Amino acid sequence: MALKIRKNRSPEPPPGCPLTECMSVIGGAWTPNVIWSLRAGPRRFSELRLDIPPVSPKVLTMRLRGLEEKGVVNRKVRPTSPPSVEYSLTALGEELVPAIEAIVAVGHKIKQR
Amino acid sequence: MALKIRKNRSPEPPPGCPLTECMSVIGGAWTPNVIWSLRAGPRRFSELRLDIPPVSPKVLTMRLRGLEEKGVVNRKVRPTSPPSVEYSLTALGEELVPAIEAIVAVGHKIKQR
Repeated sequence: MALKIRKNRSPEPPPGCPLTECMSVIGGAWTPNVIWSLRAGPRRFSELRLDIPPVSPKVLTMRLRGLEEKGVVNRKVRPTSPPSVEYSLTALGEELVPAIEAIVAVGHKIKQR
Repeated sequence: MALKIRKNRSPEPPPGCPLTECMSVIGGAWTPNVIWSLRAGPRRFSELRLDIPPVSPKVLTMRLRGLEEKGVVNRKVRPTSPPSVEYSLTALGEELVPAIEAIVAVGHKIKQR
């Protein structure tokens, strides 16, 4: 006899699952690192490169564009000499910070094992 | 004159960055969904398939194996008739739940925009 499907199903995600939704924002390689780096204030491209040494310029550009399109990151050209471009978290981006902090907290626990 | 690198650098990740560490565990497509589904107790493969309709059997198998290797998920053969295989969260797996809950909470906020 086939086994019955049990009832301990985790609450069903509503349509447009928030988990999938949020992971589509923070899921790409280095994306959480970018958000983490901008937590302390606006950073320029070259500064982000220093913050996240393993990320290639190509991937960092892609991530910043993606995050800008999703409304997580704000791109601002500043009238410095030479002109500079600064990236910062939007209000939505700030809301992602606690989730990334929770991930970091678990990361610490994983490392302690 | 080149612009100076500013001092507002987010605290540097320690070697073996916890963020990268944790994302390597929960980062794959559907991985957080698997952990979310197991939150409510052990589930079988067929039950997980129902929980996460878009996931293909191939990817689900890969994810469960990966999570087992990383010590997040426990695989147990049960002496039912027919024999059945049950997946559950290990203690480490349980520790990931708050991080995923934080991601879900932000997901809800993203959806409200």
